[in-house]
Amino acid sequence: MSRPTPLSGFPELLPAQRLVEQQVIDRLRQTFELHGFAPVETRAAEPLEQLLRKGEIDNEVYVLRRLHADPAERVDEASTLGLHYDLTVPFARYVLENAGRLDFPFRRYQIQKVWRGERPQEGRYREFTQADIDIVARDGLPFHHDVEVARVMSEGLDAFAFLPPLRMQVNNRRLIEGFYRGIGVTDPTAVMRVVDKLDKVGAGVTAATLRDEVGLDHTQVDKCLAFAAVRTADSSFVDRVRALGVRDPLLEQGLAELVAVVDGAAAVVTGRVQVEADLSFTRGLDYYTGTVFETRMAGFEGLGSVCSGGRYDALASDGRTTYPGVGISLGVSRLLLPLLGRGVITASRAVPSAVLVALVDEESRAGSDDLAQSLRARGIATEVAASAQKYGRQIRYAERRGIPYVWFPAAEDGGRHEVKDIRSGEQVDADPATWTPPLEDLHPQVISKEPSQ
Amino acid sequence: MSRPTPLSGFPELLPAQRLVEQQVIDRLRQTFELHGFAPVETRAAEPLEQLLRKGEIDNEVYVLRRLHADPAERVDEASTLGLHYDLTVPFARYVLENAGRLDFPFRRYQIQKVWRGERPQEGRYREFTQADIDIVARDGLPFHHDVEVARVMSEGLDAFAFLPPLRMQVNNRRLIEGFYRGIGVTDPTAVMRVVDKLDKVGAGVTAATLRDEVGLDHTQVDKCLAFAAVRTADSSFVDRVRALGVRDPLLEQGLAELVAVVDGAAAVVTGRVQVEADLSFTRGLDYYTGTVFETRMAGFEGLGSVCSGGRYDALASDGRTTYPGVGISLGVSRLLLPLLGRGVITASRAVPSAVLVALVDEESRAGSDDLAQSLRARGIATEVAASAQKYGRQIRYAERRGIPYVWFPAAEDGGRHEVKDIRSGEQVDADPATWTPPLEDLHPQVISKEPSQ
Repeated sequence: MSRPTPLSGFPELLPAQRLVEQQVIDRLRQTFELHGFAPVETRAAEPLEQLLRKGEIDNEVYVLRRLHADPAERVDEASTLGLHYDLTVPFARYVLENAGRLDFPFRRYQIQKVWRGERPQEGRYREFTQADIDIVARDGLPFHHDVEVARVMSEGLDAFAFLPPLRMQVNNRRLIEGFYRGIGVTDPTAVMRVVDKLDKVGAGVTAATLRDEVGLDHTQVDKCLAFAAVRTADSSFVDRVRALGVRDPLLEQGLAELVAVVDGAAAVVTGRVQVEADLSFTRGLDYYTGTVFETRMAGFEGLGSVCSGGRYDALASDGRTTYPGVGISLGVSRLLLPLLGRGVITASRAVPSAVLVALVDEESRAGSDDLAQSLRARGIATEVAASAQKYGRQIRYAERRGIPYVWFPAAEDGGRHEVKDIRSGEQVDADPATWTPPLEDLHPQVISKEPSQ
Repeated sequence: MSRPTPLSGFPELLPAQRLVEQQVIDRLRQTFELHGFAPVETRAAEPLEQLLRKGEIDNEVYVLRRLHADPAERVDEASTLGLHYDLTVPFARYVLENAGRLDFPFRRYQIQKVWRGERPQEGRYREFTQADIDIVARDGLPFHHDVEVARVMSEGLDAFAFLPPLRMQVNNRRLIEGFYRGIGVTDPTAVMRVVDKLDKVGAGVTAATLRDEVGLDHTQVDKCLAFAAVRTADSSFVDRVRALGVRDPLLEQGLAELVAVVDGAAAVVTGRVQVEADLSFTRGLDYYTGTVFETRMAGFEGLGSVCSGGRYDALASDGRTTYPGVGISLGVSRLLLPLLGRGVITASRAVPSAVLVALVDEESRAGSDDLAQSLRARGIATEVAASAQKYGRQIRYAERRGIPYVWFPAAEDGGRHEVKDIRSGEQVDADPATWTPPLEDLHPQVISKEPSQ
């Protein structure tokens, strides 16, 4: 067959890039597990009727058919399967299906591929990886879990020193609704829908739309715009909202909740992630009912939000029982693929191996294998040279892969083992029972470079 | 919506079961990486023409269509996408596509879901996980890599003390072909096809078919059956083959190769995995050219082979360059799901958490959070009680999830911290800066039980 070409929207990584993605996923898992989140995976396929419950995305679903199915067979929503396009819909189904076997409140993380038949562009793919955390309860879910998911995800992201700075923006739908109610708005949802487009259309158009289409008066419009302009990296947003002179019990509840989330998350990050209250966004989707999150990456604002979520008072319901939830979803592919693609980050080598054991001749392969095995037993990833070429060529074999150390086994007649750092050229005697590379050479490291954009 | 029901062939795991699967996958990854195998993931979808290159499986492929695609649109093999049904076909395509950016010989592992539209039964699923290792070269691949993949996979499997005993059977196509040639068979493939069904149809039928359909004489039939009966856990199969009095250069090469693979793999296992030469099987597929592997699990022979592979002299080719490879594929789902489903293995708890920090009252949540965070900083997975119920109810919360320790924070006025092992009831003073659970309690453990079959 001739050389195949990539498939638009289905990105694949070279091994060094995959090593980066894998380290990111491993580190996220570690953070989620340290906080007691249990791993869940759901099947890739759901009945179409499950997937079409959110009306707006139905054109993005990939439908599955067996190749030899009758072509005249109808696409039937109950029996036809489609690939899931997010991890929330399948998780809600999983909770209902297994409710009797789960303990609530139930914390789970889920890191999987999802598929959307969208037009591909940077940051938007037809196949991509998401990492979700959610906490779901039966009937009532205490508010402190909103703080918890914000802390866990911002702590998780904060661990990645190689990422550009991230800004996690938090808002609260109760706070917004309470404020609108407090200024006498009768249809808060209509106002939210207009204000949510503020950063796209600007203050002038927003003001005109609020006045002419929603029917707000000048004072209301001014307050809405002043409110939406509030953005603070600490709880000082409370004073700025108070200064607008609006009073409402729901507004007070929303202010208290937003303070708790912003302060709680800010307490666990070191500066890589900036947590801030941003009263301008609402995350259009109707099912959020309290806290909402969005996250933007410095220099990559065009990607949109890389990490979003919020509180939904009805994540799932079987008619009798309602399961409220709060969660955040990180777009792993959206976060990493632009950085990998532009060469902003990469791995220090393309293989796990820290050591290449050189080969004197093919007859001594068993000895080199034993030596490699003794290094592996101590956690040092090691490979043995593929053939007994001249040492110079074996060193170049290591060099091409970025393997930092080449081990020269002792001759049979009792010589010394030597190990060479092929970057510095330094070569020293070494004991296979004790020699260990420096920690930073043990595993491939993620390294950041200047963007080549 | 009403309670959803499972989808046949698309198995899903409860959190405790998923913890087992995840530990198995993590441990396999660790082994593969210690041997220098680099991680690769390929997209889930391939053009149909790629997937249909092996003729026999085309009825199992799931074809993808966007929901709103024109129903009259033709299924066209070049542009229509299907879900991959194994990891070998996509890997061969990946090698060709990226040949200029990979270093050969290239070692990769790949652990991913695959899909087949088969009729579901135990051990056969429509969605399942495979773990593959392969070594691929450009033009020539030295034989010692056959030994290497056998060592790596048997070492990987040998690490799972909770599995029933596994029998890795190795054979060699050159050995078989050389033997048949040595007894004057003109069409070795025809004989292989018949002998491959020996364990299904028995010696009588096999002998009759070899005589009447393939045209062998009595002596040839007897030698074929005696050859196929050879099965040894060490290199003594060589003497048994020699005793049959057949001489052929290809037979000699095959014997030497099989000795190297069996001895090489046997040297790295501790007894959990039994490596043996078994001259009866050929793994029907035509593309294997040398070493072949199959693996059976004691008590679960009905599942068929859980881990198979071999040497293919043409894994991929772009017309100019041929890429030979050798690899083994482990059916992670086929190995684990029957054991999990029958309750033979499970995890010691359903959550990662080793500790539940109790809550005196809602006002002291920040203190309990800080305490939990200091345990997490030392790698101890910890959650904080969801609500300030009576301590007895908080202990039952831990008990239901299998969390072994409950931490009672010191009162504000300088009391002592105490930690209770809720299994033994033992409660001791503890310092949050130094207390650590025993290693076996730090992470959920895989535990084996008597099968409930």
